[in-house]
Amino acid sequence: MKGIEREPLPGFRDFEPADCAQRNFIFNQWRSVAHTFGYEEFDGPIVEALVLFTQKSGPEIVEQLFAFQDKGERAIALRPEMTPSLVRMVGKRLATLKRPTKWFNITEQFRYERPQKGRLRSFYQFNADIIGESSSAADAELIALAIATFQKFGLKKEHFHVRLSDRQLWVLWLKAFGVNQEQEVGALLGILDKWERRSPESIQEDLTASFKDSTKATLFLNTTEVLRKARTLDAIRECFHNCQPSSDMEALEQRLSELKVLLQELESLGVRDWVTLDLTIVRGLAYYTGFVFEVFGNGDQGRALAGGGRYDHLFEKLVGQPMPAVGFAAGDVTLTDLLRKQTLFPPDQSAVDCYVVFEQTERQRALLLAQQLRAAGFSVLYSLDLQKDLGKQQKKAYADDPHYVITLTHELVSQAKAQIKGAESEQIVDLKSLPEYLKQ
Amino acid sequence: MKGIEREPLPGFRDFEPADCAQRNFIFNQWRSVAHTFGYEEFDGPIVEALVLFTQKSGPEIVEQLFAFQDKGERAIALRPEMTPSLVRMVGKRLATLKRPTKWFNITEQFRYERPQKGRLRSFYQFNADIIGESSSAADAELIALAIATFQKFGLKKEHFHVRLSDRQLWVLWLKAFGVNQEQEVGALLGILDKWERRSPESIQEDLTASFKDSTKATLFLNTTEVLRKARTLDAIRECFHNCQPSSDMEALEQRLSELKVLLQELESLGVRDWVTLDLTIVRGLAYYTGFVFEVFGNGDQGRALAGGGRYDHLFEKLVGQPMPAVGFAAGDVTLTDLLRKQTLFPPDQSAVDCYVVFEQTERQRALLLAQQLRAAGFSVLYSLDLQKDLGKQQKKAYADDPHYVITLTHELVSQAKAQIKGAESEQIVDLKSLPEYLKQ
Repeated sequence: MKGIEREPLPGFRDFEPADCAQRNFIFNQWRSVAHTFGYEEFDGPIVEALVLFTQKSGPEIVEQLFAFQDKGERAIALRPEMTPSLVRMVGKRLATLKRPTKWFNITEQFRYERPQKGRLRSFYQFNADIIGESSSAADAELIALAIATFQKFGLKKEHFHVRLSDRQLWVLWLKAFGVNQEQEVGALLGILDKWERRSPESIQEDLTASFKDSTKATLFLNTTEVLRKARTLDAIRECFHNCQPSSDMEALEQRLSELKVLLQELESLGVRDWVTLDLTIVRGLAYYTGFVFEVFGNGDQGRALAGGGRYDHLFEKLVGQPMPAVGFAAGDVTLTDLLRKQTLFPPDQSAVDCYVVFEQTERQRALLLAQQLRAAGFSVLYSLDLQKDLGKQQKKAYADDPHYVITLTHELVSQAKAQIKGAESEQIVDLKSLPEYLKQ
Repeated sequence: MKGIEREPLPGFRDFEPADCAQRNFIFNQWRSVAHTFGYEEFDGPIVEALVLFTQKSGPEIVEQLFAFQDKGERAIALRPEMTPSLVRMVGKRLATLKRPTKWFNITEQFRYERPQKGRLRSFYQFNADIIGESSSAADAELIALAIATFQKFGLKKEHFHVRLSDRQLWVLWLKAFGVNQEQEVGALLGILDKWERRSPESIQEDLTASFKDSTKATLFLNTTEVLRKARTLDAIRECFHNCQPSSDMEALEQRLSELKVLLQELESLGVRDWVTLDLTIVRGLAYYTGFVFEVFGNGDQGRALAGGGRYDHLFEKLVGQPMPAVGFAAGDVTLTDLLRKQTLFPPDQSAVDCYVVFEQTERQRALLLAQQLRAAGFSVLYSLDLQKDLGKQQKKAYADDPHYVITLTHELVSQAKAQIKGAESEQIVDLKSLPEYLKQ
């Protein structure tokens, strides 16, 4: 093949019309659900100062970014996520924005990763955040919104579920084992986050290194295995109660009561049945401070469809002012795979409403008609080839499979009429009344 | 102010909800008009191989790009325009795509330029192209589409016009002066493109250098000044006729007849009045091969609102196969300025449909109602603060200015009723019939 490479860069996608229609379908459903929950759409630049991301996630994040120096010697990056831009933008107007602020957006994001199933270098995300409300009612509404977005595509209880967890319970759990310091807590949350993907031996090894005590490490491993299996408030309570080192049961009860409020809110919102209490969810990102959740396809061992949680410290860290916040993101890549698998995309709707064909003597009248129909909102094609006679135009028109073929012969036009042919009808109608006829 | 920089990088924009709504309004209007003309939406990656752009525009283009090396040592760039990606994507399927292929898209593009009025480092463009049709009818339809997009915003003949020009007429004109070689032609088209922005002395200087003959340069300058003022076919014909070196009048007549067809098509499409014949438009980019046009705000000396033309050689250059093509692009930056100036953006529609307030005893029923109304398509807010009593909720609700405030007291709910208060009405209705009530 001569000329340039036809394929996009690795990890990037071309959206031909059929793919673009599916992508836009997803965007439209996301947008419409977010509006019903009273979220307002915003957007920020795809290109941001690199420091915005390193400030949030540490310098290691650069490894995973499209990060560059621009011609003005600024360190810049293609955004890998939306939250830092959100905090920056809301940070500009913290004094005046109404609270809670409920914002969403639908944007492209970039990560320099090895492309694999469900993970590309460019992807779209739906992001929704509530800023300025510390009540668990905010967490609950956000989870209800996440569920509603999936329901909107026709996905039902048999297709997906939400796993709800809590970073504060994990922090209490670690405290019971004498782990208090921020860095140690972070390291152990890191081990907990990757628990599932590793062998007990390698976990034991890391725990021993952390605790500097192999007996304690074994105890932690075994009791944590039980806690990871807890699926009710009582089961969690029992784990803490049975925990050999002493648990702070008062702090636990306080936290469980907040979790109970969250579950009650989910019940009131009619979505409790979609949600499983499941502490195996830890969420990799260090900035979460409270309840966290992920959405999974049922029976799907793959990547999460969505994930989020509370991040009450990020505003203080980035813009120097404390502000409670909770948010989630859902990606288009895993969702597209799921909707294709479940055949939940709407059928192809690319057919135009009308194809106008004509004897070339009637070209002027035909083009005028096309423009009138377009102005009335119908999609209209006609042949752009000035040489094509009526027969050839008709052949082309039927190949395009429009809803209607409208024919203008000299004879018909001289009577101010046209022929209109649909899948099941064929009629001669007044040229003037065609827009009305089509509206029916 | 503590913390990170709150403003975006120079030349980039934050879209807070009010700005985002205006941006989306523009996108929706573009999309809806393109559909009526039977164009299908596509999209490609924001990040492309750098060679895609240098192959089209030469290595100088790198100066104006966000161009980098990625971690895999690929030379990449943020796309500065959509046409190369379009050619690459269509190039993959030249054998199977129906012809003509009519594609459009709405995408973000990036240029590393000094930010100034009407020109930013990131901007959105509406692109529409017809591939596989050499007839002037395609050029005409595309111009009609461009005009329809502006009309769709409520812009009228007093607000904008199209300047139509022809690169082939300029090539014939240069030929009359003995300029035949591609490189010379390119250089002189470059001078013609910047004619308006330069003094006659500096043009004379460049022309003398090109023609290596100051008498010929003066003659060219003076007669070209007349041709630049021609606004009719006859005036153009006269210029060529009077031209001292001999013009190829046969070739001229051939081309004028094609231009006449284009003008007739525009007449049939009902948009001839928006179009001025104006050879001062040359279009900077070297790849145009035929008719070119730009859209301008009336009385606006600034940047074009849109521009495009025929580029019949680009497919051959990039993908090694000849294919006629014509396209145009309209940007969001100049358009947004114009729509704001003419106050043609719709009023703020961010108000939610309902704000549900309640005595906390009725929280469960209220949240259920909120979810029912959301599922029916209404936007609904309620207080996420579990401590707020009815009075405080109402105060917050009225501050948010929803279309309706729905109140659930214990007494009302015990009778399965709710109060609904709009701008001009206040009623007690059955809880169950609320969705129906709101639909009216």
